[in-house]
Formats: sequence, structure tokens, C-alpha cells
Amino acid sequence: MNSAQKLAQIRSLFKQHHVDGFIIQKGDEFLNEYVAPYAERLAWLTGFTGSAGMAIILDQSAAVFSDGRYILQMQQELDQNNWESFHISKHPPLQWILEQKQNSIRLGYDPKLMSERDLKAFDHSSVTLVPIVNNLIDLIWNDHPAPPRQPIVAHEIQFSGQDHHEKIQALQQELTLNQEDAYILCDPASICWLLNIRGSDVPYTPIPLVFAIVTHNKVALYADQTQYTGSLSEFLGNDILLKSHTELETDLIALANMKIAFDPAQTPIWFIQTLEKYKVTFNKRNNPCILPKSCKNPIEQEGARQAHIRDAVAVCRFLYWLEHHGVGHSEVEVAQKLNGFRQEAGGDFYKEESFPAISGVGANGAIIHYHATPEKCSILTEDKAYLIDSGGQYLDGTTDITRTIWLGKNPAPQDLKEAVTSVLKGHIAISSAIFPKGTTGSRLDVLARYTLWQKGLDYDHGTGHGVGSYLSVHEGPCRISSIPFPVPLQEGMIISNEPGYYLSGQYGIRLENLLLVTSTTYDNFLKFEPLTMVPFDVNLMNIESLSITEKNWLNQYHQQIIEKISHFLNDQEQQWLRKLCLPVT
Amino acid sequence: MNSAQKLAQIRSLFKQHHVDGFIIQKGDEFLNEYVAPYAERLAWLTGFTGSAGMAIILDQSAAVFSDGRYILQMQQELDQNNWESFHISKHPPLQWILEQKQNSIRLGYDPKLMSERDLKAFDHSSVTLVPIVNNLIDLIWNDHPAPPRQPIVAHEIQFSGQDHHEKIQALQQELTLNQEDAYILCDPASICWLLNIRGSDVPYTPIPLVFAIVTHNKVALYADQTQYTGSLSEFLGNDILLKSHTELETDLIALANMKIAFDPAQTPIWFIQTLEKYKVTFNKRNNPCILPKSCKNPIEQEGARQAHIRDAVAVCRFLYWLEHHGVGHSEVEVAQKLNGFRQEAGGDFYKEESFPAISGVGANGAIIHYHATPEKCSILTEDKAYLIDSGGQYLDGTTDITRTIWLGKNPAPQDLKEAVTSVLKGHIAISSAIFPKGTTGSRLDVLARYTLWQKGLDYDHGTGHGVGSYLSVHEGPCRISSIPFPVPLQEGMIISNEPGYYLSGQYGIRLENLLLVTSTTYDNFLKFEPLTMVPFDVNLMNIESLSITEKNWLNQYHQQIIEKISHFLNDQEQQWLRKLCLPVT
Repeated sequence: MNSAQKLAQIRSLFKQHHVDGFIIQKGDEFLNEYVAPYAERLAWLTGFTGSAGMAIILDQSAAVFSDGRYILQMQQELDQNNWESFHISKHPPLQWILEQKQNSIRLGYDPKLMSERDLKAFDHSSVTLVPIVNNLIDLIWNDHPAPPRQPIVAHEIQFSGQDHHEKIQALQQELTLNQEDAYILCDPASICWLLNIRGSDVPYTPIPLVFAIVTHNKVALYADQTQYTGSLSEFLGNDILLKSHTELETDLIALANMKIAFDPAQTPIWFIQTLEKYKVTFNKRNNPCILPKSCKNPIEQEGARQAHIRDAVAVCRFLYWLEHHGVGHSEVEVAQKLNGFRQEAGGDFYKEESFPAISGVGANGAIIHYHATPEKCSILTEDKAYLIDSGGQYLDGTTDITRTIWLGKNPAPQDLKEAVTSVLKGHIAISSAIFPKGTTGSRLDVLARYTLWQKGLDYDHGTGHGVGSYLSVHEGPCRISSIPFPVPLQEGMIISNEPGYYLSGQYGIRLENLLLVTSTTYDNFLKFEPLTMVPFDVNLMNIESLSITEKNWLNQYHQQIIEKISHFLNDQEQQWLRKLCLPVT
Repeated sequence: MNSAQKLAQIRSLFKQHHVDGFIIQKGDEFLNEYVAPYAERLAWLTGFTGSAGMAIILDQSAAVFSDGRYILQMQQELDQNNWESFHISKHPPLQWILEQKQNSIRLGYDPKLMSERDLKAFDHSSVTLVPIVNNLIDLIWNDHPAPPRQPIVAHEIQFSGQDHHEKIQALQQELTLNQEDAYILCDPASICWLLNIRGSDVPYTPIPLVFAIVTHNKVALYADQTQYTGSLSEFLGNDILLKSHTELETDLIALANMKIAFDPAQTPIWFIQTLEKYKVTFNKRNNPCILPKSCKNPIEQEGARQAHIRDAVAVCRFLYWLEHHGVGHSEVEVAQKLNGFRQEAGGDFYKEESFPAISGVGANGAIIHYHATPEKCSILTEDKAYLIDSGGQYLDGTTDITRTIWLGKNPAPQDLKEAVTSVLKGHIAISSAIFPKGTTGSRLDVLARYTLWQKGLDYDHGTGHGVGSYLSVHEGPCRISSIPFPVPLQEGMIISNEPGYYLSGQYGIRLENLLLVTSTTYDNFLKFEPLTMVPFDVNLMNIESLSITEKNWLNQYHQQIIEKISHFLNDQEQQWLRKLCLPVT
């Protein structure tokens, strides 16, 4: 089927469903960041493969909407005869719909794929939203891949650090406190944290595709029956009911007349529409797993340290290889090489990359969300900056690191060194910050930008995101960002510190470590402990521009790396590492 | 009349007004920060003279509420037999009321003294709020001072920099845009800015007590007829109607059936209650004068520079005097001395202090809102830190400066010097910041605290507030503060930079300059220009802890001071200044 045929088939279904149009959002029923092939409806229909987006099909017109990263890619991937494309915030879907139809319009959508918050974007007196439970794409998608059904496995206490019954009890106490009968959890990462389970249904994040309902004396878990094993059932205990996805609707109906809590940002509207027929009272409140999941316990913290040592060994070996053999290879090959080092250093602990690596040489490094493909990528050449942003999923922790490396033997140009030094100063200012309890990441953000700003430079992304414990590499509720955000940084949180600078057409710089929030000797203050243990490229720094405090930080950091990493390396790699980590004065 | 008699008289009025209690808030009908004696109802009734507070009188009990600064002062000033006192946020008035009365209560208040926002604090199903237009205090206050009726004077174009007709036109265009018939202005400072007028009805802020109604072709100004002069009428022009306060109610009624805009935070509820009887449509929006008033035009900017040179001459002479003759004088005498220097240096430009000076030696300096009185103040002694926070109202600008000085010839203790150096580093980080357009003061706040935080120290107040142009020393909408605040810093804004550190029982440190927001050579970036031209006390710094950048900033700043100030000083003062401003290395 070509693009026009697919569109014609979808449109032929409008009449029987009493709609004038249909919304296709990128995403699955779990509102995941990374989705399995069966949920790639947007890509199948339109050809657009960007990581975020939405299509609207009307009788006579059809359009895809995505953000600034994907404007060019939409134009390249879409069949321009059938699809228009727009910047989702500059020309939003609702505006486009109202331009197409003067009269009122009935717009179909899949209620299992959209939350209350998603639907707000279509709030208009002319638009009537019509839920269609059997997704129209699924009705015409012949070779539709089956949803993944990988086994659900226990995440053992040596990694989780806390028995799942304890976590469940805390949630049940909250139910009692709020006089609620149940909490509906639709976020698989939260369910993984709560029950100490993991899975492998989607790429990059070790989660199964599950829902859960927490009540006062039970937790009902919903997956496919084939995903459950006898040992899992034993691990979880009798108070965890291993249910099938097909039982979910019946179980929801059994909540009739009760008081049910859920997070409106994380719950598909289908849950609410199903429940509200049965006189349920709703209590909308934030997912209660999010905060405790983000505050890693001592076992998880130690796991993160260990995972980061393995990861650093892999990245150091990779950087040694890159310096000696990288030039001449493609961006994709180099990223694969790094994954190979991770597999080697990680052994049984290493599972997969924690997100698709960003591997960009020269001007490609300046494209913040660059994605090299075997069909379209550049070859690493001498006298270029090379940016690699990658991470791994280890049983005991999730990593995420970016380094910018100078390729070749000629010295790096002075303007590049100046920019790297400014970014490094920002990185150090965040990394060495001590701050009162109650401080939000938003308040710290300027520390990463101050030196760049002094030169009229900046970067157009946040400074840091939360990172899970063998879970999602992007996790709430903490972040370091210019946008005011109410949740303070708290002990045990793991957050990235990744200032950058991007000169379009020339180079991209990003220096990223993961940091653990820890206590200090001052009662009311917190600090960061760097988890990432990989040196920064001194060949790209103006050492004379660093203050004594900054040099001390760098020397101490590099000294730690030698102590923790060098004995895992061979003689040549060790020599190379010791040279890179020589104290600067 | 003693406290008990006053209370008895107020209570005797309850029955005829059908109330069970009455609210007495500190403040006047213009919701001013500083009020004239006639509006000091709270002080007259209770004896409590703090700058913020509220009393509630019920049949059997009475209480005063104020913030943390005044807990001790309330206990000292109130007649404890008749008045209780409470922390206004820890034990708020509504909570206290509900503790006193189990049943529903009718609570009287003066609708001319409270805004919609003020009344929200009493929102409860058991409380019925009853407006009483003739304030009960006024009915029993025999020697009630008359409201001030000082002449309203023109603020000439050489100071204002923009004809008032231009400003009015811009406001009228907003009325058209919003399809409104009138904007009600209750903030005298805004009216002063809009009409280029000033007055002297309250201390510290050169405003008359006026209201205004802006319509499409006129502005009606409301004052006492005795406040208008022939020359003012000529200056303002025919389209400004000079009306009497007694005409206000009739004029409001004439707005029947119209669409009226006002700022709910700045408008006494009496206006709304009066208008809503006459089928008026309300449009609540921010006072449209606030933002343009805060962005000083080039003439106002130049005026600010000139006012700050005069102010610096006065403060430098004062500091010379302080070093040679200060010890042995009281905190009050020393502050008066400074005011004398301002009168001398300011000549005809100088009008008055811009706020009550905070003059605190040793431990008194650690009390953030310390107020020395002739009856109760300390004598300056050797080997103490002395903090003086003061400012002046000059025809061309408003000043506000704080310096911390070491008294005596012995070297200052090392811990004090370390703390001063940390505060200075914060001051310099803010002062030398370059930041993208759109940056809020909230984002910059951490720069002032970073060095203190590294030692587990902090200060419990904001870092900066907006300052008017020969208007209020505290003005919106900009500020530098930990509290997220949406209005970005913009060219022409004047803002204070006043980090501090307070060691209870020992000393207080605050280093405050006013800064002007100006453009940079980078298109999209702004910076600060220091207006204040008074050296920082090098005897209180650890020079070796300053970075090269910080030393450069200090040396350049001190060099500017010599260039701009020294030729106004006598030989001895000049020598003293040059020595203080010697470059540090």
C-alpha cells in the first residue's frame, strides 16, 4: 500500500464511525518515550520516523506536525502529494483543522493512546472529539507486528535495595490517608519500581508493557499471561495478582462507586471514560511512585557507582580506540564500536544502550538531536570535533555520557577551545555546587550558562534531566532547566549535567556527566557526586582560562578516574589515560 | 484614652453596624508602603508601630498579627491585658477568628483600605464580611490628624524625559485594543509616572494621595482642590481634569453600563462594590503603567546617574567622617549625619530619605529590618562591623545603598573577612552578569548566593528589588529573588543588588548597589551598569580569595569612582578615597 492508498482506506472508515477526521499520535498505550514496532502507527502511515509527532487526516487534507528538530526530516520522509507538514507549536494541529473546516467537525481519536492533557490541545467549540476504541490504523494495517510479549523478570533485592512489599505498603498508606479505594498506574517504569520487576518489551528502557491497580490489600498487574513465569509469581508473592490485559476492563468496572486516584498526565483517557460510566469518584493526583523512584536508596546508589565504573572502562577503551583508529570510520560504525566496548566491559550486567547514541562529526555535532543512519552518515576525518552522546542499561544502573573529542594530531582551533572551556566552566560550576535543601534545579541552571553568556553564547536545551536506576534514561521529577519547576533536588536523585554550545555548520560541544545528589557536612545543604568517570579532553581546553578552583576540580576528578578505572585497562590504555589525566597547573 | 477604653468604644459600635468584629489593617486608601499619620490607625489603636500588620477586634478578644520581624516588638508595644499577638503566617487571623467563635461571624472591614486580594485571607463559610464605609476607628479618634494636602507639582520634562500626553495616548490605545471604556488607577506612583507629577503627602516617596480614571479622551485626577495650582493646570493641559476626591463616587456612577479595567491587587474593594451596582463590566488586568514606569527612558537613566553621583559624594564624605569621628556616636546620630551630607551634596535636588535608614552596629546589623530609635539604639564602638542601608530622593533619581564598614584600627577578624568576601563575590557575579533578553531576575538569583552556599551559608531575603525614578524605592515588576517571577529584566530597569550574610548576635553584612539594565554589543544580551559609586571596604576583604576577574571588576569599579567622585571632595577626603580605591592585586 502506498501513502495515497493508506489515506483512502482510512477515509473510507470515517462514515461508519461518524467522524470527519482522525488523530494519529506517536506513542503507545503506556505513553512511553520509546515504543515497540506494533505502536509505530505514525511511521507506518506517513513514513515519518521522528521521535515525536502527530498526524491529522481529514476528508480532503492530511498533515503531520512535529517540533523544530524534525522540520527538514518531515519534508524528506513524507509523500508531499498527500501530506503537509508543520511546526507543532508555530502552526498547531487545532489551528490547521480550523483552517480546513469552517463548520463544526467530529474528530476521531484512539482513547487508549491519548491522555486528558493530550486532548486539551483540541479544545474548541467547533471540534467534537469522538473516541474510537479500535484504532482505524489497526483495521487496515495488514502486516501489523504483534505487541511484544517478553518475560517479566524479577529485579533482585541486591539491585533494587528495597523489598517491593515495603514500597506497596507506603502507597497503600497514602490510599488510606486520601480515603481512596485504588490508584491506577499506567506508567510501566513506575510499576517496575514499585514491584521490583523489569522487562524488555521496548528498546532502550527495560520495561514490560504493563498496567497496575493498587488497592488496600492487593496489587493487580496486567500483562499478557505468556509474560509471567512461575519464579516471578513466587518472587512477587500472593498479594500481587498476575492478571491478563483482557481482564482489565472487567476489573475497572468492578471499581464501580469507589474513589479512584490517577495521574491525569500519565493515564490514557480510555480509563476515565470506562470508569465514569460506573459512578466512580476521581481523585487526580501526581503518580506517587515518581518521587520515591527518583530518590535512589543506598543500594541503588552503590549500583549506580558500579555501573558507571563499567561504563567508564568501556568509554575509556573506546576513546583510546577512537584516538588511534577512529578516523576513516563512519559515525554509525563508531557508535557500534562503543556499544561493543560496553558489552565487553559490562558482561552479564550490560543489557543494551539506554537511548539511540548521538554520534556526530564536525557540523553534524551541531545538530542537537542528530541521528546518523547507515544510509546517511559522515566519515570521521582529521581536524574535526566529534561529539558522542550515549549510555547503557546495566542491571545495577543506567548511564548517559557525552564527550566532545578533537580528532587528529594538529592542535584544535582557538575558537573551539575557547567554547569548550566556557562549556566546561559551566559543567564544573554545576558539578561543584553546594545548595540548600529545597533548591530546585531551575535555580541552578544559570550556573551552567554564566560563562557562555559572558561571551554572548548560549545553548537551546535544558542543562539536566533525571535518570532512572536500570530504568528510563529520562525520568522525572527533577531537572536542571530555565523553566521554573517546583520539585527540589533531593538526596539520592541522579541527574545529568550537560551544558553545550553549538555553532551551526561547524561543530557541536556537549560535556555530560551524571551526578548523584548527596548530603554534605552542613545540615541543610546538599551537593553532587559525579558518577561518570571519563576524562575531559584537555587538548580542547584553554587551561590558562581556568580558575584555581576549576583546575582543582578537574585534577581531583581526573585523579579519581585513574584510581577507579585504570586497573581495568591494558598497559597502553593505562598509559594513555594517565597522560590525559595529568594534573593541569 | 487608654487601650482598654479604645477597645470598649469600638465594641460599642458593633451592634449598630450589625457586626461581631472589625478588621484594622495597616495602610491607607492608596495601599501605600509608607503612610501619612492620619492613616496610622493600627498604631493609634494598639500602640504597635511595625511597618506591616493587622488587628482583629471581636466582642471578647482582640489580637494583632504581623510577620517574623515584629514578634518581639508586638509583645513590647502592645498592652498585653487587652491584646494578643501572633505570627501572621504561622497563626493567621482567620484561624484565630475561628478559634474564638464557634458559630458564624459577621466581620466588619473598611472597603477603602482593602483590596479583593486582602479579603481572600478571610474566605470561609463561617465568616460574612461586612463593608463599613465610615471606618470605626475614625468615629472614635478625637485628635485624628487631617489627611495631608500638599501641593501637587509638575515633574518637568528634563527629569521625566517623556511628555505625559504620549504616555496617556499609549494607555488609551490599550483601552481601544481591549474594547474598554476606562481604566481605574489607584496607585499614586503610577499616576505620578503617567501624568509627570509628584507630591509630598507621605514620607519617603514623593507622591500626592491621588486616584485617576483614564478614559478615551480624558484623564480625571482626584485630589483635594487645595492641592492644585494654576501652574499645574497649565502644565497638565485641558485633557487632564483636576477633580476633587468628593467627586469620585459620582464619577464612578457615571461609568454605569461601561467596561472598566482595573488591577485587582491595587484597587480597594470599595471601587468594585460601588461600580457593580451599576451594571459595569469588569476587566481585571495588570496596571499598565507598571512595566513602562520600570523601564527608564534615556533622560531618566541619565538623571539616575547624576543623582547617584551626588549621593556617592554624600556617602563618601560620610564614610570619611565615620572613619574619623563615628565611634562614640549613636546609630541614630550617625544616620542623621548621613542625611546631612545628602542635603549638602544634593542641594536643591535632594528632597528626603527614600526610606528609613537601617543603621546597625555589631549584633544589631544582624537584624535584617533593624530600626534604631533615639530611645533605643546602640553606640558605635571600636572593633565592630557597622551596617548602614540608606537612600535619597533626588529630583532626578532615587538611590538605595548599603555598605558594611569595619570600625576602629585593629584588623577585622578573619571569619568576618571571609564572610564579607563571599558576599562580595556574589555581588560581583550579579553585577558583571551578561544575560539573554527574556531572562528573569529569579534565574540570576543563585549567582549572588553560590559562594556563600559553598560554605553552608545563605541569607533570608531577596537579592534585588526594582527602584523608581524619583518615586518609590521599592517598585515592580522586576526583582532578583529565589521565587519564580515571570517578568524578565529589560533595558532601562533599575534594580538593587544586595546579597548579605547575618550572623545572629555578632554582625550583619550587606553590600548593595543599584544597577541599570543596559544593552550589550551582543544583539540578544543585556548587562548591568552600576549606578552606585561608593567603594567597598577593602579592610574587610580577603583579597587573595578574589579571582583575577573579580579583582579586575573591583579595580575598574573603584577607578570609575575616583574619576566621577573625587573632584567633588576636599583634599583630605580625596586622599582617603584614593587610598581606599588603590588597585588590588
